[in-house]
Amino acid sequence: MQFHLNGFQPGDPDLHPAACGATTALPEAVDVLIVGSGPAGLVLAAQLARFPGIVTRVVERRAGRLQLGQADGIACRSVEMFQAFGLAEPLLREAYWVNETAFWRPAAADRQRIERTGRVQDTEDGLSEFPHVIVNQARIQDYLLDSMLKSPQRLAPDYNLALAHITRDEHPSHPVQATLQRTDGGPEVQVRARYLVGCDGARSQVRAAIGQQLRGDAANHAWGVMDVLAVTDFPDVRLKAAVQSAAGNMILIPREGGHLVRLYVDLGEVTEANRAAIRATAVEALIATAQRILQPYVLEVKSVVWSSVYEVGQRLTDRFDDSVDAAGQVREPRVFIAGDACHTHSAKAGQGMNVSMQDAFNLGWKLAAVLQGRSPTSLLASYSQERQPVAQELINFDKEWSAMMGAPPKDPLNPAAGGVDPSELQAYFVQAGRYTAGVATRYRPGPLTGRGTWQALASGLAIGARFHSAPVIRLADARPMQLGHAAQADGRWRLYAFADASGQALAGLCEYLLNDPGSPVRRFTPAGADLDSVLDVRAVYRQALPVEQLPALLLPRKGCFGLIDYEKAFVVDPAADIFALRGIDPVHGALVLVRPDQYIAHVLPLDGHGELEAFLQPILVPQ
Amino acid sequence: MQFHLNGFQPGDPDLHPAACGATTALPEAVDVLIVGSGPAGLVLAAQLARFPGIVTRVVERRAGRLQLGQADGIACRSVEMFQAFGLAEPLLREAYWVNETAFWRPAAADRQRIERTGRVQDTEDGLSEFPHVIVNQARIQDYLLDSMLKSPQRLAPDYNLALAHITRDEHPSHPVQATLQRTDGGPEVQVRARYLVGCDGARSQVRAAIGQQLRGDAANHAWGVMDVLAVTDFPDVRLKAAVQSAAGNMILIPREGGHLVRLYVDLGEVTEANRAAIRATAVEALIATAQRILQPYVLEVKSVVWSSVYEVGQRLTDRFDDSVDAAGQVREPRVFIAGDACHTHSAKAGQGMNVSMQDAFNLGWKLAAVLQGRSPTSLLASYSQERQPVAQELINFDKEWSAMMGAPPKDPLNPAAGGVDPSELQAYFVQAGRYTAGVATRYRPGPLTGRGTWQALASGLAIGARFHSAPVIRLADARPMQLGHAAQADGRWRLYAFADASGQALAGLCEYLLNDPGSPVRRFTPAGADLDSVLDVRAVYRQALPVEQLPALLLPRKGCFGLIDYEKAFVVDPAADIFALRGIDPVHGALVLVRPDQYIAHVLPLDGHGELEAFLQPILVPQ
Repeated sequence: MQFHLNGFQPGDPDLHPAACGATTALPEAVDVLIVGSGPAGLVLAAQLARFPGIVTRVVERRAGRLQLGQADGIACRSVEMFQAFGLAEPLLREAYWVNETAFWRPAAADRQRIERTGRVQDTEDGLSEFPHVIVNQARIQDYLLDSMLKSPQRLAPDYNLALAHITRDEHPSHPVQATLQRTDGGPEVQVRARYLVGCDGARSQVRAAIGQQLRGDAANHAWGVMDVLAVTDFPDVRLKAAVQSAAGNMILIPREGGHLVRLYVDLGEVTEANRAAIRATAVEALIATAQRILQPYVLEVKSVVWSSVYEVGQRLTDRFDDSVDAAGQVREPRVFIAGDACHTHSAKAGQGMNVSMQDAFNLGWKLAAVLQGRSPTSLLASYSQERQPVAQELINFDKEWSAMMGAPPKDPLNPAAGGVDPSELQAYFVQAGRYTAGVATRYRPGPLTGRGTWQALASGLAIGARFHSAPVIRLADARPMQLGHAAQADGRWRLYAFADASGQALAGLCEYLLNDPGSPVRRFTPAGADLDSVLDVRAVYRQALPVEQLPALLLPRKGCFGLIDYEKAFVVDPAADIFALRGIDPVHGALVLVRPDQYIAHVLPLDGHGELEAFLQPILVPQ
Repeated sequence: MQFHLNGFQPGDPDLHPAACGATTALPEAVDVLIVGSGPAGLVLAAQLARFPGIVTRVVERRAGRLQLGQADGIACRSVEMFQAFGLAEPLLREAYWVNETAFWRPAAADRQRIERTGRVQDTEDGLSEFPHVIVNQARIQDYLLDSMLKSPQRLAPDYNLALAHITRDEHPSHPVQATLQRTDGGPEVQVRARYLVGCDGARSQVRAAIGQQLRGDAANHAWGVMDVLAVTDFPDVRLKAAVQSAAGNMILIPREGGHLVRLYVDLGEVTEANRAAIRATAVEALIATAQRILQPYVLEVKSVVWSSVYEVGQRLTDRFDDSVDAAGQVREPRVFIAGDACHTHSAKAGQGMNVSMQDAFNLGWKLAAVLQGRSPTSLLASYSQERQPVAQELINFDKEWSAMMGAPPKDPLNPAAGGVDPSELQAYFVQAGRYTAGVATRYRPGPLTGRGTWQALASGLAIGARFHSAPVIRLADARPMQLGHAAQADGRWRLYAFADASGQALAGLCEYLLNDPGSPVRRFTPAGADLDSVLDVRAVYRQALPVEQLPALLLPRKGCFGLIDYEKAFVVDPAADIFALRGIDPVHGALVLVRPDQYIAHVLPLDGHGELEAFLQPILVPQ
């Protein structure tokens, strides 16, 4: 991490200097008003709070921080995102790591007893530099809240404030008017916003206000969930375990701290007749079902920390913004929805919180770029265009997954009864690993996703997918690190330039970017700003070269003292050659253009200067 | 990390439940009074604050937290210790990593210009799982202060309190009486203590009070040190660099944050005649010297964050406690000194802060064990007995090192003038690597360090040396981890049992420890305490076995609910076989007994039950 650029600052380097005028009071007008402080709302808030010039507020109807319960699975991709916020280390330290998953089924000899059928690695080797982990949603939110508080905006949610209604009018700068009600009494509050984002969950009022509806299957399968402290002789209680039994199905997920465990207990099909009874299932009944499922093992629950009963419902809105008005006319979006407000699904694939946070990460940098005048407002339409199809894919996946997890085990003595064989379940689990790790998302070609003309130059870095990190050595200080960790959640684009064999094309690119009048670095960087403040160029060399031979672009002078930034150049780590790992063309090298949310926008030849200009032209505003 | 054992606790798991009666006021009587809040004082305080039943206070004459300057090198061994306090992750994230060191000398063609002669890896591969890092002493102290505040004792230093004098009398429980003066005015404060520890630096008043003196060479070589933000074309400004030039010597140490750099500038021999002038060297003169040394490179200093001039003086006290009274009679020690109070040396080998912290880590668990009634008071004599020789070794090393670093470069055209050749310096640096990494300390045979009768059973885990961690897989959750990270700074002993080929001896050991009347686990664990609260047994298997086949000792029931602790058993990581890495006998296995400060007390055969009893008998008190 970099700090002390503009002079030594004692104390915690994560505590950024406060923005001029940062205040805790809720202003009458804000740039962005976020409704809801769940994972989506807080990722968005943590992102926006990092920009000193953007005024953001989060309103939350609850009285304070979440304490327990809710979601808990953090996919590899989400840890990658947390890394960009500087939060991965404490998360990894605190979390349970899902290393392997065990599968159990009714024993052939006695179907009332379960037996282990297999155990598989949870995450395919090399899928991400991070593991799949489990930690309480409340703790994820704590991390994000702490990050917000240390950001230049010193942002904290305004609790006890519920959205009453919103209107959009012709106000020239702040066309969204929100009326808020204090849940602890007190007068209504009016706030004007340039943009409003509804992260207000499955019962979203913002969704209703923009005329969107969750569409999809009615819920029809119920699950009970509980976090417990228990004593058991079930041997896989510290492994994620999918248990199929004659008494029903259960998913067991160990939790952070070494003792807590979450149990998802199958409560069967919901009908009109049994719905009320199932919804009223007492926790004692959940425990009794879990005990039957685990036979012959004994489960003695010592403490129930949290429990809930829910029905799987896979539903989705048509769009995630108000870009089509009541009359069907297309307009500039001003109100957005993210997370559960626009898509709901089952909990068992562990995707909900992760996809919601990725929604927010997608939207955050776009709002920031527009509010900073770096990108045209047209950029904002891409949020719904990109994320709605991702949510649709999630729902398709979740239907399949839930059906597998909810199906009874196939009985070898009664194959006609149907069901799923544990080996099928296990095979499906492995195959779905890339999806559940969160790394299967791939944006379609569009304004932010280039065509694959030059994809072969970096075959392992798929355009539209997230940038898949790999090890490198930083040139100036010989530090082994992950190249992807150069990307911070700071709204900047990264241009990873992988050197060609002769080095001529890379040198030419650096010279062009530094000095050519058409250079995107020159055109899109505001006057007086650091050279890397919009487009951050990082070069990866195949062989070490002396620092003094680096192109000037890679040793930029920054900050009020004009100090040199030495962290732009890397060399291959001999123990893990990034060129080989990511299929970089060893002769021609490659230029990989990565968005502020870590997704690959384009792969180009190092000398594709014109193509680079043409691609960025509609996305960035000349300064 | 483990938490939620006695019920779910929302929020930060590092925030331990407050001890009953923990208070911020300075009591009239405390168990341990620590004078000084530097690295030694704070490591000791952080250690003691973890014990709910021990009342500790730290008094500090300064008005508040340190902000800048002072020491900055954190040896691998110190990072290992920080890991035990749960502080390694944030430290590694924030710190500069010393990966390689560069060497420069006068160019053969023009001795007024320097040229690079070589570059070496800073830390030998495999020496530690952690790198050698650099971070401001103030930040190290911040981490420790935060840890103290989150401990059961909620401990914070009492600032503005200076020690006036101490007396030792015949008070039955609290024989040390300290008189403290408020540096910001106000009345004197009297505090009685069971034990007092002087961590009050080179001018220690506690040292004077116990009649100890620093003995050794008078200082005779001066160095200037400064932390600067600078622009330079010296290419190795982000590498640790030892520069020998015709204009003098300099050591350059990059610092955390990517921009800051520390320069140690040689100011030459000190004589009576020039001492006053050298001590008064202005920072402008330091800069000018640094600029001459770096010729032909240009150094443009933009901001001087901190600077100082000091003389190297290697000095040491005869003992680190008051175990010999004024009449020469041996008695139970009640007053201790640690860190610079008992040993001073140069800054350039980066050892001072590290050795001081290890002093405190050595003393902390011993004080805790005695105060908890787990160990006899005779344990306390071992502190001075172990640490004084370590400090003597440091001083011997530092003299050699300082002489190398302070010597002029050998001139090939004038060999008769003497000096050190850069290649000699580089070779010495590599050879000294184990020492500067802090892993060369090896306590001599004594009450806490067994004889090497069975050393061959674990040839890579030297008795008396720190436990050298290696990778393993945790059995119950398949998590890859470092075995050494099982050790927390919690005052417990670790018994690492490496399985024998048949598994019989390991099974026998577990059965013996659980059920034999002579078992140290049975004898030394207080009634009602968790089975692992004094002796924490961890087993490493060569092949995975089902959790249900583990001996009962390795699945202990703990806490108010009797929850099972699943973190006692490990299996070899196929990618890095700990048996091979640490020379464990593959047929017989080994039992490695590790003290609470991570040093290896003994290596025994798995069936050496009698030897284990005999070794622990004088160290622990039957409960």
